[in-house]
Amino acid sequence: MTIYNFSAGPAVLPEPVLKKAQEELLDYQGSGMSVMELSHRSSLFEEIIANAEKLLRKLMNIPENYHVLFLQGGASLQFSAVPLNLAQNKKALYINTGSWAEKAIAAAKDIHTVDTQVIASSEDKNFAYIPQITKDLLDKDAAYLHITTNETIGGISYQKIPDTGDIPLVADMSSNILTNEYKVSDFGVIYAGAQKNMGPAGLTVVIIRDDLLNEQPLFAPMLDYRLQADKHSMYNTPPTFSIYMAKLVFEWLQDLGGIPQILKYNQQKAGLLYDAIDRSALFQSPVNKNDRSLTNIPFLTNSDTLNQKFIQLAQEQGFENLKGHRSVGGMRASLYNAFPLEGVQALVDFMEKFEKAHGGE
Amino acid sequence: MTIYNFSAGPAVLPEPVLKKAQEELLDYQGSGMSVMELSHRSSLFEEIIANAEKLLRKLMNIPENYHVLFLQGGASLQFSAVPLNLAQNKKALYINTGSWAEKAIAAAKDIHTVDTQVIASSEDKNFAYIPQITKDLLDKDAAYLHITTNETIGGISYQKIPDTGDIPLVADMSSNILTNEYKVSDFGVIYAGAQKNMGPAGLTVVIIRDDLLNEQPLFAPMLDYRLQADKHSMYNTPPTFSIYMAKLVFEWLQDLGGIPQILKYNQQKAGLLYDAIDRSALFQSPVNKNDRSLTNIPFLTNSDTLNQKFIQLAQEQGFENLKGHRSVGGMRASLYNAFPLEGVQALVDFMEKFEKAHGGE
Repeated sequence: MTIYNFSAGPAVLPEPVLKKAQEELLDYQGSGMSVMELSHRSSLFEEIIANAEKLLRKLMNIPENYHVLFLQGGASLQFSAVPLNLAQNKKALYINTGSWAEKAIAAAKDIHTVDTQVIASSEDKNFAYIPQITKDLLDKDAAYLHITTNETIGGISYQKIPDTGDIPLVADMSSNILTNEYKVSDFGVIYAGAQKNMGPAGLTVVIIRDDLLNEQPLFAPMLDYRLQADKHSMYNTPPTFSIYMAKLVFEWLQDLGGIPQILKYNQQKAGLLYDAIDRSALFQSPVNKNDRSLTNIPFLTNSDTLNQKFIQLAQEQGFENLKGHRSVGGMRASLYNAFPLEGVQALVDFMEKFEKAHGGE
Repeated sequence: MTIYNFSAGPAVLPEPVLKKAQEELLDYQGSGMSVMELSHRSSLFEEIIANAEKLLRKLMNIPENYHVLFLQGGASLQFSAVPLNLAQNKKALYINTGSWAEKAIAAAKDIHTVDTQVIASSEDKNFAYIPQITKDLLDKDAAYLHITTNETIGGISYQKIPDTGDIPLVADMSSNILTNEYKVSDFGVIYAGAQKNMGPAGLTVVIIRDDLLNEQPLFAPMLDYRLQADKHSMYNTPPTFSIYMAKLVFEWLQDLGGIPQILKYNQQKAGLLYDAIDRSALFQSPVNKNDRSLTNIPFLTNSDTLNQKFIQLAQEQGFENLKGHRSVGGMRASLYNAFPLEGVQALVDFMEKFEKAHGGE
């Protein structure tokens, strides 16, 4: 039975990447050592991390005045690190678009030296849409405006990045980094956990513009962006194997034709599923059509019993991790870069069969 | 050519562990998914993390009133997390035994709400010994006394854990966790990066006694011990693959007979090398005989040129990562649990040959 893994993260990885990692797991490039056994100060690992950065810079077209950091702790640690580094004794503005934006906001509010303000929210409609951000909402003195480019749980996404003028835009891009053609220069800081589109869990990428690096050292060295930039992500031992896996994923994406190609592929996959939802009398999307995510697609019937039956029967057919998050209910299909088109086609076929058999219940 | 990897970390892993990981890298237990692709909320991963904890509890005989946390960021992040959680508006006592103790001390001093005091140091003799800790050195009001059980760079180690009475003892055990028969109940908190004796880099284990968990939430959720304990290390996505690798290492160690057996093996390995150093007219150990580390063994000749020649010729013979840290110079052999006895024997043979050929230079 073919397994299709719709997990929201950690998520499906490209098969050629896993095969390559398997092949050289005990002997990396004839060294007689596993990548996991390499000293992070060895020339072999230094080449891996340098190439990972080079590939990511090329894929995302990252300008030279941005640093690329390979850190740990997930986006959740960045929820604290961003305000600590950028907004102490300043104002930090946030847009609330759902579960992940809320976590970022809560972490900023926990820091008493930061004046955290939520300037727009779609909570009124259970986060089914992206609020409009107009320049008059922005306080000129703010240290930054924070957005969540894609809500993994809610399934909404910014189709257009707000223009914030001189106010640095900070983005949690965990669930759609490398899936969309974003312009890095529109952002001051981008951060993302790796476990959706870049590699295994345990690696966090931070892309930060030079002039936003903290001038004063932070009280916690591991959270200090300038220190991490000065040390090229090697202030301490980085998550070496995860960086190696990310490098392999970046190579795979490069070979496929980079972001322009994967974007087309992602649009094809998402389009297939949204079309099936839209023509169905049983399934529906809970979110605003204009703000639909390309990577995380919640859908549901109007019956919890039917949702559960669908998830159960789907799993029996090899469709794994389709259960939606409890805050939205129903189902969710996460279609990251490595998820294959055939899997979406198979799901759509299964949905049609299910609707015929159970639609009238 | 057989490769012997003396790296101080990331370090050699047990070959059966790497083979097992390789075998199931694309298909974990017939799931059709890699461990790296498993949702951290899946029953398959929940079993992995639960078993990792169970095995570690058994190996170290961890009492029930201790929590085991699987975190990220290395010991370096704990250098900040420990004082933030345990010593805000209190005194924190430290013993300075070398490079890693110094890093822990510096991080604590960076926190202005903590009164950090170094109560003993072996800096006077370039950290060649472990200072005596007597009870009169301890301030009864201190939140804790922090020690570094083994100095990875300096190569010294506590042979006897100091008795601190009611003052919780906090230990950075990164380079000798699972190598020695420590009694967990002698400690309030133990923390260790995984990349020496437990698995790949990117995982940090924290073992903390119930009553030391912070009563007030910390301003940074990811650093909040109580929150991490309440969420069973799943406040956010943990480093799933690293935890799986650690579980395999724990199983391997259990199968070997646990810590009593590996301790004998480690004593045999270290004894072989120390004996060779002690009978050599060329090589010497820079540290106090009574405080010698079992896991990290620096040694050197009295000539930088000879040291460099030794390192170069050794590498040509497959002895990797023997170069000592710049602060000590010379050579360093790290002999963690997974390092094989044959490798030490081969090194000792090579040292004797080298001494015959170059001893008179």
